[in-house]
Amino acid sequence: MIPDDTLPVEPWQVREPQLNLDVLAQSESLFALSNGHIGIRGNLDEGEPHGFPGTYLNSFYEVRPLPYAEAGFGYPEAGQTIVDVTNGKILRLLVDDEPFDVRYGKLISHERILDLRAGTLTRDAHWQSPVGKQVRVTSTRLVSLSQRSVVAIEYIVEAVEQFVRVTVQSELVANEDQPVTSGDPRVAAILDRPLEAVQHEDTECGALLMHKTRASALMMAAAMDHEIEVEGRYEITNDASDDLARTTVICGLRPGQRLRIVKYLAYGWSSQRSRPALRDQAAAALHSARYSGWKGLVEAQRKILDDYWDGADVEVEGDPICQQAVRFGLFHLLQASARAEGRGIASKGLTGTGYDGHVFWDTDGFVLPVLTYTLPHAAADALRWRASTLDLAKERAAQLDLKGASYPWRTIRGQECSAYWPAGTAAWHINADIAMAFERYRIVTGDETLEKDCGLEVLIETARLWHSLGHHDRHGVWHLDGVTGPDEYTAIVRDNVFTNMMAAHNLRVAADACARHSETAREMGVSSDETASWRAAADAAHIPFDEELGVHPQSEGFTTYAEWDFNEKTSYPLLLHEPYALLYPAQVVKQTDLVLAMHWQSHKFSDEQKARNVDYYERRTVRDSSLSACTQAVMCANVGHVELAHDYTYEAALVDLRDLHNNTKDGLHMASLAGAWTALVAGFGGLRDDEGILSLNPYLPDGISRLRFRLRWQDFRVTVDVIHDEVTYTLRDGPHGELTIRHAGEDIELSTTEPTTITLVKREPLLPAPQQPPGRAPLHRNSYRSVTQPS
Amino acid sequence: MIPDDTLPVEPWQVREPQLNLDVLAQSESLFALSNGHIGIRGNLDEGEPHGFPGTYLNSFYEVRPLPYAEAGFGYPEAGQTIVDVTNGKILRLLVDDEPFDVRYGKLISHERILDLRAGTLTRDAHWQSPVGKQVRVTSTRLVSLSQRSVVAIEYIVEAVEQFVRVTVQSELVANEDQPVTSGDPRVAAILDRPLEAVQHEDTECGALLMHKTRASALMMAAAMDHEIEVEGRYEITNDASDDLARTTVICGLRPGQRLRIVKYLAYGWSSQRSRPALRDQAAAALHSARYSGWKGLVEAQRKILDDYWDGADVEVEGDPICQQAVRFGLFHLLQASARAEGRGIASKGLTGTGYDGHVFWDTDGFVLPVLTYTLPHAAADALRWRASTLDLAKERAAQLDLKGASYPWRTIRGQECSAYWPAGTAAWHINADIAMAFERYRIVTGDETLEKDCGLEVLIETARLWHSLGHHDRHGVWHLDGVTGPDEYTAIVRDNVFTNMMAAHNLRVAADACARHSETAREMGVSSDETASWRAAADAAHIPFDEELGVHPQSEGFTTYAEWDFNEKTSYPLLLHEPYALLYPAQVVKQTDLVLAMHWQSHKFSDEQKARNVDYYERRTVRDSSLSACTQAVMCANVGHVELAHDYTYEAALVDLRDLHNNTKDGLHMASLAGAWTALVAGFGGLRDDEGILSLNPYLPDGISRLRFRLRWQDFRVTVDVIHDEVTYTLRDGPHGELTIRHAGEDIELSTTEPTTITLVKREPLLPAPQQPPGRAPLHRNSYRSVTQPS
Repeated sequence: MIPDDTLPVEPWQVREPQLNLDVLAQSESLFALSNGHIGIRGNLDEGEPHGFPGTYLNSFYEVRPLPYAEAGFGYPEAGQTIVDVTNGKILRLLVDDEPFDVRYGKLISHERILDLRAGTLTRDAHWQSPVGKQVRVTSTRLVSLSQRSVVAIEYIVEAVEQFVRVTVQSELVANEDQPVTSGDPRVAAILDRPLEAVQHEDTECGALLMHKTRASALMMAAAMDHEIEVEGRYEITNDASDDLARTTVICGLRPGQRLRIVKYLAYGWSSQRSRPALRDQAAAALHSARYSGWKGLVEAQRKILDDYWDGADVEVEGDPICQQAVRFGLFHLLQASARAEGRGIASKGLTGTGYDGHVFWDTDGFVLPVLTYTLPHAAADALRWRASTLDLAKERAAQLDLKGASYPWRTIRGQECSAYWPAGTAAWHINADIAMAFERYRIVTGDETLEKDCGLEVLIETARLWHSLGHHDRHGVWHLDGVTGPDEYTAIVRDNVFTNMMAAHNLRVAADACARHSETAREMGVSSDETASWRAAADAAHIPFDEELGVHPQSEGFTTYAEWDFNEKTSYPLLLHEPYALLYPAQVVKQTDLVLAMHWQSHKFSDEQKARNVDYYERRTVRDSSLSACTQAVMCANVGHVELAHDYTYEAALVDLRDLHNNTKDGLHMASLAGAWTALVAGFGGLRDDEGILSLNPYLPDGISRLRFRLRWQDFRVTVDVIHDEVTYTLRDGPHGELTIRHAGEDIELSTTEPTTITLVKREPLLPAPQQPPGRAPLHRNSYRSVTQPS
Repeated sequence: MIPDDTLPVEPWQVREPQLNLDVLAQSESLFALSNGHIGIRGNLDEGEPHGFPGTYLNSFYEVRPLPYAEAGFGYPEAGQTIVDVTNGKILRLLVDDEPFDVRYGKLISHERILDLRAGTLTRDAHWQSPVGKQVRVTSTRLVSLSQRSVVAIEYIVEAVEQFVRVTVQSELVANEDQPVTSGDPRVAAILDRPLEAVQHEDTECGALLMHKTRASALMMAAAMDHEIEVEGRYEITNDASDDLARTTVICGLRPGQRLRIVKYLAYGWSSQRSRPALRDQAAAALHSARYSGWKGLVEAQRKILDDYWDGADVEVEGDPICQQAVRFGLFHLLQASARAEGRGIASKGLTGTGYDGHVFWDTDGFVLPVLTYTLPHAAADALRWRASTLDLAKERAAQLDLKGASYPWRTIRGQECSAYWPAGTAAWHINADIAMAFERYRIVTGDETLEKDCGLEVLIETARLWHSLGHHDRHGVWHLDGVTGPDEYTAIVRDNVFTNMMAAHNLRVAADACARHSETAREMGVSSDETASWRAAADAAHIPFDEELGVHPQSEGFTTYAEWDFNEKTSYPLLLHEPYALLYPAQVVKQTDLVLAMHWQSHKFSDEQKARNVDYYERRTVRDSSLSACTQAVMCANVGHVELAHDYTYEAALVDLRDLHNNTKDGLHMASLAGAWTALVAGFGGLRDDEGILSLNPYLPDGISRLRFRLRWQDFRVTVDVIHDEVTYTLRDGPHGELTIRHAGEDIELSTTEPTTITLVKREPLLPAPQQPPGRAPLHRNSYRSVTQPS
């Protein structure tokens, strides 16, 4: 956990007013900068102390063998692990002969600010060396959103009170030492010094290092260049060796004098391009950065963010904690995706090595919905990446003796890397999650080109997978057996409602897409018989319902499983304290599953079913996954438990700002950060799109006086401005003047000419607010102390 | 496969008339000698060529880490692997300067005979060296059934035609080179040179080597001594070093002269005893062996076997192949168990390293039933071993947050070593299999002491496990969810019929045992409320039935799963070609499961159910396990498909004699060897005991003209003599003159005074004989060519 007063609540920034070494690793994740192509953790400029040093290049990974004591057919043999690459953000400082290290001497002040509008991390340190010399160090970093290969750092040292001799060592460090994180010596061995030196050279004001990985055979170049400003004389030297390049600047500073260094970094990497090509690519990026200059990069950064916030901002009046958190989340979503361009968006973005840097369904299911409404080009890029790995997914399906494509449960490059098939391969729903993301993109943006270019084939091949996985029983009912839904505490089941509904959706949208692109579909070998069989399966998909209890069992028979013994077995997360053998056959839910189905396939459930299902599953959901709280917020708001929904919103929104899962050090939870937006927009805004129309149904909790958010819908931008009694819809942009949306179940027309205001009626829940399992109620929002800054 | 003519069909021996190097590894398993305490593979005296050298001591194992790419709570971290220990059976021969090696020179004749009545392996080789010198080598080996630590070899070299100088090197070799069998370098590393030298010494006519294992910290001593007989002068020298001790005998032989060496070997091992204690223990065993002498050991061996055959023999007239096979099986069962005395009976006995030398349910479910009727003291010993590991099973249950005891799916010492929980931990039925074996022992032998000594506690703790695993649903029905039955192609299911019936049986017999020993049970903390709750669970256990099809689904919903695509997916064994993700939710059965329930819990099924279930499951059972054919034989015979049953009998009986599963090289399949007896006695003899009474219902297939078998029942011996038209029951021994048995469902009285003969009625099947999956019909018995020896 991060103490409440570590990071004051401020609307447009995350500020650490004093250095807190106890949560250094967490702050490195929170303060990570990225553009989706390159990511750097918020390590201190001088490199140490650190939690984990981290510089990541999207899809730059090493391969490692996956061991099995008892192997089975089709188990993936190779894992992929993101590599901490050449660290270019190091600027070591010597004050006279004393290295600047916050652990020595006296740190008079130390402030770091992640500015969500500037897209920079700044640091202001006032330090007195052990012998009493004082300096002020101010650094500002950015990972450029405008030039995707570029990182830039402005580093300023100012002498205070006395003359000091200042030495700055600006470095590129490959194969830096890592804290030991795995008990498995084989993992450690592979990730220890993962980079093999290929080339090094020093240039006039910088250097270049090139390396490659052993098993995955990826090559990378890292290059740096510097601009130096100082009154008077300075000396600069460059040297480079295999794993270290160093530019050293020495000068003397009288009190008030400053040394300013702008460090430009460029990275290039490839599995195919040659050494000279990569070398030149990095050099070109450096030139381009110097051409723009520090000021140009900073201005371009702010402009991109201004545009982003104009279309994406969520304003939460009366609730400064949520206000900060949702912007923090949106900022990191932008960072994770803006320039990913043909590579995946990992569940931790590029902020840490958690989950080995893998992409999961988190992206398609939780991150892309937000991006589709706020940064659609990034959603399209992510979907193009999925499409680009379709061949691997088809190979995987063929290996498993199935038709179509089977997307990996976890991967960096596209190959399945999950080593536990009951919660990997069997979680087939990943395929429908991807299909849903394609379909949502098409509906929300109105952009048909993605489907035409590549989406159609993904829809066809995933539909084929479902068709070969399921079967009609002797009564014609279509079943999916042996599947694992989102709840990983129940696996290998029959007719998981979530999976069946999502599969049916996948089959239908694939059939519809084939109808839209009948010529292309025919060329891909899809006959009308085939699409008919998809529709038949979708129509016959079994959705179990427990008539006695009036609820949907999460999967066949679930509501007759043993109840979990919440009197005895409440060490959370349960998976670290209880065997799967007990968890699977009990009515204990790791994360929303049936409840998630009610969000994503909302129109398949009646209001009463939603109320009763929420009531049933709330009592059995232990939320041992960070993917759960946002959906609980959405569905609690849906059925009228708006105060409970507000508490869940906090949990989703603060997962990293407060380190609620105690693993923010390993990287940020992109899906949960997206979940803050989802809790507000889909929860209190009531956003749904599963019927192909923009549906809204806003209703605020007591603690939020006004919620205003912006959505992109086709060529329009819709602003939704909610107060307790009414909602005002404003339509911006768009080629024509009218848009039909659905408000609270009724279709209404919005016009670009004037806003539409509608009075809201009080939402009365059918049932009283449910209890959660012991110890698993969400923290009441008032328990988070809000340390706000006087404005 | 072993060609039919490699081993002629002979009633009391397995003879290899010519050395067939193509099946050398298989013959090493077939010709393995063991007493359950020590096992030696049938390697050639001179050590090579070999398939795998093998000398095994029961429960002498090394520990190795079990790796998991994705670990889970409660996964066992340490595996156990049987170790090939110091090889004492090596006798190298030099003829003049030429080493006797069957691959060089000319092998004029070579015959090996495993004598099932003598309990010896003899070898007769006539060899001409590359330079034309001829010798005759005759060796006879035994692993003593009378002196459990002793192995003895009589080795005779005779000069033929010319004078030869003969050198015999008799050795003890530790850490002998192994062929590489695992692709996993870590396994290889641990099993490469697994023995650490502790001590070596040479004695007057022999030597001693002591070693210990690194991780499991077991110590062992191997000692040898020799008696030499030869006309004229010979020289003997002894030397010993860490891993090699050698006794060298040199002499000259004129044509017809013989050098005779008797080599005595003794082994001792322990986890606790000291080095000197073990050293002396081995020395004492050697002394004792020399005291008995070769002749004494041979005579004692035959006497023990005479006694065994007197009570255990099965005579199969008209079917010499079955005749040989059932005796071969019974012989190896004796070898695996006779002197195990407090240690387990591994699934391969001590004949190879297959399955790491682990004990599985094979023992309790397939081997012990045979031993209970034929060698009850060995059954009792095996059960005492299970009882001796009860504390480990209780620890395992506690680790899994369950009550009672959870026995390991696979183990050497008692700890769970299964690294794939869906087919390990979840196969909870192992516990009921053990309970059943205790209960059968009590009923069949009438011996109540085992239950009193240790069985009661096992029954109680396994009952507690079931009670904590299962639950009553809201209608009071008792379910076992998340279990895996015997069919490992369907796992983690609800209400597996086999498991539910076996669990109910376990609960009932535990409650009954507590009633019999109420005082002791009370002391163990069992209240009458607790036993009542066991009976209530057993009575309410759900047994699903598919009314539409008139068959039992193997587990809930099984008969509505997808049918396996036998047109496309028929590469057997399927588990090497198809993912579990497809196998689990399909109607494809690896090995009998529901059909096994009909054998072991026969009285729970009507005749019609049996007929329909056999018909249903025969069509879906691919028999990818060697545990299946015997049960298919039993149940096919039961429902009247006696010719099909006969074919299955062949498959069970010949699994090793013909190497039907292509893995006899790794050791013999004890359960399938037991299955030969079971197929004949429970199949064509109709033996059942699940109602606590000796039930028989014989009926012969066309190819067997007479089947005569002996059973021990309480203090009686019952001989059952079946011909096509009638059966004659003869009662031997016993304190009183009468015994009630059940014949064909009717209770009858047998008397010691005279045999009872009953006419048999033709067995008409309700349904025609079923088809098996493509490629999985059992080979017709006539396809095995019977190379018989003229008698």
